[in-house]
Amino acid sequence: MNRKIKLFDIGEFGLIERIRKGTATQPDVVLGIGDDCAAVVLPATDLLLTSTDLLLESIHFRLDWTDWFMLGRKCISVNVSDIAAMGGTPRYITLGLGLTKDHPVDHIEQFFAGVGAAAKDYDVALIGGDTCRSPGPLFVAVTILGSVPPDEMISRAGAHAGERLYVTGTIGDSALALALLQRGERPPEALAQRHHNPAARTLIGRELARLHLATAMLDISDGLLGDLEHLLTASAVGCRLDGRALPLSKAFAASLSNDPELLNLALNGGEDYELLFSSPAEKAVAIEQLSATTGLPITCIGTLLADPAARQMTDHLDRAFDLPAKGYNHFCD
Amino acid sequence: MNRKIKLFDIGEFGLIERIRKGTATQPDVVLGIGDDCAAVVLPATDLLLTSTDLLLESIHFRLDWTDWFMLGRKCISVNVSDIAAMGGTPRYITLGLGLTKDHPVDHIEQFFAGVGAAAKDYDVALIGGDTCRSPGPLFVAVTILGSVPPDEMISRAGAHAGERLYVTGTIGDSALALALLQRGERPPEALAQRHHNPAARTLIGRELARLHLATAMLDISDGLLGDLEHLLTASAVGCRLDGRALPLSKAFAASLSNDPELLNLALNGGEDYELLFSSPAEKAVAIEQLSATTGLPITCIGTLLADPAARQMTDHLDRAFDLPAKGYNHFCD
Repeated sequence: MNRKIKLFDIGEFGLIERIRKGTATQPDVVLGIGDDCAAVVLPATDLLLTSTDLLLESIHFRLDWTDWFMLGRKCISVNVSDIAAMGGTPRYITLGLGLTKDHPVDHIEQFFAGVGAAAKDYDVALIGGDTCRSPGPLFVAVTILGSVPPDEMISRAGAHAGERLYVTGTIGDSALALALLQRGERPPEALAQRHHNPAARTLIGRELARLHLATAMLDISDGLLGDLEHLLTASAVGCRLDGRALPLSKAFAASLSNDPELLNLALNGGEDYELLFSSPAEKAVAIEQLSATTGLPITCIGTLLADPAARQMTDHLDRAFDLPAKGYNHFCD
Repeated sequence: MNRKIKLFDIGEFGLIERIRKGTATQPDVVLGIGDDCAAVVLPATDLLLTSTDLLLESIHFRLDWTDWFMLGRKCISVNVSDIAAMGGTPRYITLGLGLTKDHPVDHIEQFFAGVGAAAKDYDVALIGGDTCRSPGPLFVAVTILGSVPPDEMISRAGAHAGERLYVTGTIGDSALALALLQRGERPPEALAQRHHNPAARTLIGRELARLHLATAMLDISDGLLGDLEHLLTASAVGCRLDGRALPLSKAFAASLSNDPELLNLALNGGEDYELLFSSPAEKAVAIEQLSATTGLPITCIGTLLADPAARQMTDHLDRAFDLPAKGYNHFCD
């Protein structure tokens, strides 16, 4: 008999036991999976950071486009990215999982292998969660706990007029991969990786905080313009983006040369998980050095303006125009 | 025009803004809703406690049996109960909410009014979360953060042979209410309240911890016998339950006198959210005093035995018999 073992066969506690066995013990985790709560030790003087993300089948992912391992990785990366965006250190994750009872156990094990691989990459521990049977789509609820010294935390609200606006890495790759998938095309591997296996910028986020290089920061999850809007509103400043400076990957630039409309994906596409931050001009050299030591581009893409209503952009001929704010909105799009 | 405002009308950020406005500011919350992460200050020497619960429409609740306010309350209470079960102080909650875009906004506002009422009762702050559109059932993912002094934390694993087993309040009420609802009957108000509006035993849990009265503890969410099994396994002890001592409410006892089979609901019914704990005999007087000062029964329901395989119970004629372990299992029942 070659029937796959289903969740039904091992039950909830069998599943939890399999997950528990896959987690490493570490001294700061006083109680891990298996009690009413997990109990952990945090650095005494740090602030506790936390963020929750929901990921739903058919809304946030499709299992015919990704695999269970990659999905597990991505669920952790997108949540860790929120800690990176505060300049913090990610430490612990809890995971809620809504599954049908017909899911083969080996899929769930691949999912947790992906979770475990990401946890190892980011040095975070899975300490708890909940599982239940869902009559609807597969869904994942991830909560990350991290910490940051109080004087190093970077919110969205600290930017000032005259400062520069920077973005890490390249933008639009994930959205372009998704657009190709939606058209039934196979995206180039470099783009597909950016969509299915994004990397949280924890090292750069932490260094920007430790070295006090950023005055406001967030991660780009809803698209550059949408997330930029959050930074501008929170900091009460305006901006002028330099359209020629937008950092694009080779794969993205190649597609763009065939279809100029794709620029919209770099501006409004989501799931870049790059960091967008403001910084005073005198920190520019230190930021260049950080880019050099981490091997990741950090690009100045504009300037912050005193007029909080200003939303300008210059095109390839340096002509300024007003740009509309737009991001992904879960209940309206 | 009298059309109800739908989620579609206000969008995700409109919803978040409404939620944010309903939360109070407090000095230990450095950053609340609206940034990449929330940031809070924890007592420096305490352990951080955390637990996640998932609640799904049609699995954990039915909106024709409860209302949105009560649902909001219950989501918080059941999660806070896990902190009570460790002897900790609940402090912060994050809330993930999967909604269809057709949900009327006033339902969501009632839900958050219930969340807010519970948050006030337990002195916890809603500091973050995520919302998204669900093509399937309504679901809620709640994560509680709390804290406890390291020497006061009560896990499931500290019970010893010879100690007494106690339970707070009364058991079976919630399960009986659910059984009546499932039969299409209207449960008596006292029972309905226990099902739709359970109270987390935070005060008693905290006092048991502070006064070092309990050696092992958990909350009864999956049924007395199922959760007792967790305590016995974790502590490697057996037990003899006194069947005559099971604390039953007047409403439950009245139903039981008509149908003796209902005793099964007191033993195996879920969602009591009472505390089950072990305690040495010399603490009995202190526990009686705690019961008197809090006004809640705390009943000795048995003794722990050295044989870790022993699962005994005495009936109303003091005859001992072996009891089968059973709890709710999400993927098998």
